[in-house]
Amino acid sequence: MNSRNGSDLRAFFQPAGVAVIGSLREVMGTAYGVIKNMRRFGFSGAIYPINPNPSKYGDVFGSKVYSNVNEVAQLIDLAVVITPPPTVPEIVEGCARRGIKAIIVMSEGFAESGKEGAALQRKLADTVLRTGVRIMGPNTFGVVNAANGLVTIPPYTDNDKIERGGIAFCSQTGSIGPHQVPLDDWAYPVSKMCDLGNKCDVDEVDILNYLADDPETRVVAMHMEDVRNGPEFMEAARNLVARKPLVVLKTGRSEAGAKATASHTGSLMGSDQIYDAALRQVGAIRVNTWQELWEVPRTLLYQPLPAGNRFAVITFTGGQGAIAADAASAAGLAVTDFTSATVRKLSEVFPRLGSNPVDIGPAMSDSRSQSSSNPFSALEKTIPLVLGDDNVDCATITFSCGKQLVPLYPMVVDMLHRLTKDFSKAVNIWLYGTSLSAMQEMARQLQERGLPAYLDLDVAIKALGCAAYYSRIKSSLRDWENSKKRTGNCN
Amino acid sequence: MNSRNGSDLRAFFQPAGVAVIGSLREVMGTAYGVIKNMRRFGFSGAIYPINPNPSKYGDVFGSKVYSNVNEVAQLIDLAVVITPPPTVPEIVEGCARRGIKAIIVMSEGFAESGKEGAALQRKLADTVLRTGVRIMGPNTFGVVNAANGLVTIPPYTDNDKIERGGIAFCSQTGSIGPHQVPLDDWAYPVSKMCDLGNKCDVDEVDILNYLADDPETRVVAMHMEDVRNGPEFMEAARNLVARKPLVVLKTGRSEAGAKATASHTGSLMGSDQIYDAALRQVGAIRVNTWQELWEVPRTLLYQPLPAGNRFAVITFTGGQGAIAADAASAAGLAVTDFTSATVRKLSEVFPRLGSNPVDIGPAMSDSRSQSSSNPFSALEKTIPLVLGDDNVDCATITFSCGKQLVPLYPMVVDMLHRLTKDFSKAVNIWLYGTSLSAMQEMARQLQERGLPAYLDLDVAIKALGCAAYYSRIKSSLRDWENSKKRTGNCN
Repeated sequence: MNSRNGSDLRAFFQPAGVAVIGSLREVMGTAYGVIKNMRRFGFSGAIYPINPNPSKYGDVFGSKVYSNVNEVAQLIDLAVVITPPPTVPEIVEGCARRGIKAIIVMSEGFAESGKEGAALQRKLADTVLRTGVRIMGPNTFGVVNAANGLVTIPPYTDNDKIERGGIAFCSQTGSIGPHQVPLDDWAYPVSKMCDLGNKCDVDEVDILNYLADDPETRVVAMHMEDVRNGPEFMEAARNLVARKPLVVLKTGRSEAGAKATASHTGSLMGSDQIYDAALRQVGAIRVNTWQELWEVPRTLLYQPLPAGNRFAVITFTGGQGAIAADAASAAGLAVTDFTSATVRKLSEVFPRLGSNPVDIGPAMSDSRSQSSSNPFSALEKTIPLVLGDDNVDCATITFSCGKQLVPLYPMVVDMLHRLTKDFSKAVNIWLYGTSLSAMQEMARQLQERGLPAYLDLDVAIKALGCAAYYSRIKSSLRDWENSKKRTGNCN
Repeated sequence: MNSRNGSDLRAFFQPAGVAVIGSLREVMGTAYGVIKNMRRFGFSGAIYPINPNPSKYGDVFGSKVYSNVNEVAQLIDLAVVITPPPTVPEIVEGCARRGIKAIIVMSEGFAESGKEGAALQRKLADTVLRTGVRIMGPNTFGVVNAANGLVTIPPYTDNDKIERGGIAFCSQTGSIGPHQVPLDDWAYPVSKMCDLGNKCDVDEVDILNYLADDPETRVVAMHMEDVRNGPEFMEAARNLVARKPLVVLKTGRSEAGAKATASHTGSLMGSDQIYDAALRQVGAIRVNTWQELWEVPRTLLYQPLPAGNRFAVITFTGGQGAIAADAASAAGLAVTDFTSATVRKLSEVFPRLGSNPVDIGPAMSDSRSQSSSNPFSALEKTIPLVLGDDNVDCATITFSCGKQLVPLYPMVVDMLHRLTKDFSKAVNIWLYGTSLSAMQEMARQLQERGLPAYLDLDVAIKALGCAAYYSRIKSSLRDWENSKKRTGNCN
C-alpha cells in the first residue's frame, strides 16, 4: 500500500484538520501540550481535541473537545495519538476507519521497550498494510512545519518563535533536532522537522522523497541510526541529492557507537563501512559530530555553491591563519595561491600582504594604511581583492568581537555584506573574542544579511569543505547527464 | 649567558617595579594602554612611565612620568618597551646598563617584517649575549599574571577581571590566548599567560622551565609554531610533563598549515612528523583545534586524573548516547561494560537501564520511577551507581538546558556536585538546549563547584580522552622510576 510517493506525507505537514487524542491534563507530554504548542506557533488549520471525558474540559485553547474522532463532522487529515500503548492499536484502527490518512503515534512503550511493546507495534504495522493509513512513530515527537505553525514536538516550547527558513531536519529521535541548538538566542532557519521514531511505517525513504519535492526546503540534514531498506534509501537519497544537499550524521562509526545505536533503536544495522560507502555513492555529505549536523547546513543554505575547493582566509593575526590552513586541509580544501595580479594589488594595500592566509593584522595596526574614519579599512580593501581572485572559490573571514565594538556592528555587517554579495563565492565568518553575548549579537546581524557566522573556526571551514564537496557531486551529476544525452545511453 | 634556569623568568611575572617606555597618548597599543591595564587589574608593584617629555604628562594613573630609566631611584626589574623599532636597541641597551633584568619588547617591525627589522632584532639578541639581560619578544603582547594583576596584553582590556586559576597559556602570538575565549561571560581560570612573539631570546624552553616550577600553574596549554632548539625543548617538556599536563596546539599539521606557519613566523620548521613524534615522546597532549586548546585543559584542571580510559555516559536520550559512543572511540576512550552488580542495581531504578551509554530518558518520562519533588531523581539514583562502578574511570553527564529550568539550576548544580565529588573519577558535563544564555549560566554555576561544563559534546569527551592519555603517561613514568629504583639503573 505504501506507494513511496513523496506527496504521501503531505497530510503530516499540511493538514487542514488535526485530531489530538489523549490526556488533556495541563502538563507537557500530553495532548494538551501538543495543542498548546500548535496554538502558540499559530497553526493555521483546525484542531480537534479528543478525550473520553469531553464534559470535563469544555474546550482547550478555544477548541471544542470531542469524545471520539467520529463525532467530528469536519475534515480531519492528521491524528496525533498520545495515549497508553495498549490503547493505541484500537485508536489507530478507528482513525483509519474514519478516513484519516496520517497518524503520528507519540506514545512510548513499543518496540523500543521490549516484547509486549513490539507486539503492539506489529499491530500498528498491520493496520498500515490493511488500510493504507500512514503512521509516523510510534515513540516520536512528530513534526514541525515552520510555514503553518504545525509544531507537535514538545521540547520546542522553550522557544517563542520558529525562524522560517530553508533547512529541514529529520531525526530518529525527537531529542535531536534544532530545538536543541540555541534557537532563541540565535534563530535557526527551519522549514520542516520530523522525528521518525520507531518507524513502524513512515521511514527515511518517505521523508527524503517528501523533502526532495518540498519547495520550502533547500538543505536536508538527517540524523540516522539505521536504514530499513538500503536500495530504496539509496534511490531516494540520490534523487534528493540531485536537487539539494543532504547532510547526514550516521551514528555507529565505531564499534561502541554501533552497539549503542543498536541498543537504542532495537534494530539490526549493517557495518559502518557499508553505510559509509552507500552515503558516498549517493553523494550525501557525511558529518561526524553533533555540532557539524547543525552548523554545516547553514553555509549550504545561505551561500552560493563554490565552483571548487580553492580556499582563502582573512585573519587579524598570522597565528590564526596557520590554524585555519590546517583546518582547511582537514576539510578537503586547498589553500590557494593568489594570481600575480592579486598579489601585486594586495601589496599595494600593505607591503606584507600578498600571500594566503591573508593576515591583515599588521595593516590594521599600521596607522599609515588605516583610514581614521573606519578602523576596518584594511578589510574594506582586502576582501574584494581576495574574493575577486580567479583562484578563489570560497573564503572564511575571521572577526574579533569585543563588547566595546558592539555599537560598530551595524556598520561592520553592512560593510561585510556589501563587500561579499557580488561575488558568486561561498563565504562565511568566524567570530571569536571575549564576549559570547557580543559574538551572538554579531552572528544574528550577519545571518540577517545572509552571511553565516560561526563560533567555531573548524566547523566554519568544515562547512565550506562540505559545500565544495557537494559542488563536485553536482558537477559530476551534470557531466553524467550530459554524457547520457550525447550517447543516448540511459545507464 | 642563558642559564635556562626556570627562575630566570621571575622578573617577567613577579617584578617589584616596572618601567613602561613609550608613547603616553591615551589610546590602546601604547605605553599608556599597558599602564591602564596594569592599574585596572590591580597590579601590586610599582609602575614607572618613561617618556622623553615627562612635563607634558605629569603623571599617568597616579604614576609620575620619568624621562629616562636612570632617573628612577627605586628598583626596576622589568621594562616594557613600545617605541618605534629603530629606537628599541638603544633603549634596551640602556635598560641593561641600568641593571634591569627583564625586558618585554612589544614593538612590531622586527624579523617578521623584513630585512631591516631582522637586523634590528639581531642587535637585541646581541645585547642579550653581551649583558645577560633577558628579552621577551619583540613583537609580543607580553604577559599576564593573574596573581598580581600584571597584565600587559592589550586585548585583555575588554574584560573586567581575570579569573585566577590553574591554567597557564603560552603562545607565539598575542592574538591567541584566553582573552580570545568568552572570558567575561564565563570566566576562564588563568594563572599566567605569555606571548613569546619573535623569540629573540626567551623561548618555549624558558617558559616551560618556569611554568614547571610555578606553584600556581597546574596545567599548561601552549600554542606552538616552531621550536628553536629541539633537544632542549624535549628536555624541558619532559620535565614539565612529569609534574603537570602539557596541552599543545602545534600548527603545520598540513602542508598548507606548515607554509602558513613559516610565512607567519619567518622561521624554518621541521616536518610535522618530527614534531608529532617529539610531542608524543615527551608525553605532551597534542590537540588539533582552536577550541580544544582552551577546552581540554579545563577538565585536566578541575577533575582528578582517571585511572584508565573506561568511559561511561549518561544522557537524556538514546540517540545522543550513540553519538557520544562514537566520539569516545574517536577520543581513545573505551565505552565500558558495567559490572553485573551495577547492571542489576540500574535495572532496579528502571527496567530498561543497565547498559552504557545510560539513557535515562525513559526513566525520566516514566511517572512511576520519578519523584514528584525532584524532576531529576533518575539522575540522583543513576550517577552514584555509574561512578561507583569499578569498570568506570571517567564519565560525561549530559544535561538539557532550557530557560524555564534556570530557577532550578542551583538545586541541580548542588545535586551534581554532591553526587560526583566523592568518587575519584574524572567527570564533565555537556550542556545543550535551546538557550545559549541559559547554558552559560549553568556552566558558570557548575564551574564554581569544580565541574567543567562544555557546550560541545565532542570536545567534552575529547577532554576526558586527553585526561586518560595523560594518566597513562604518568603511570608509565612512575613504572619507569620504580624500575630504576629496583635495578639501580639510571638510564
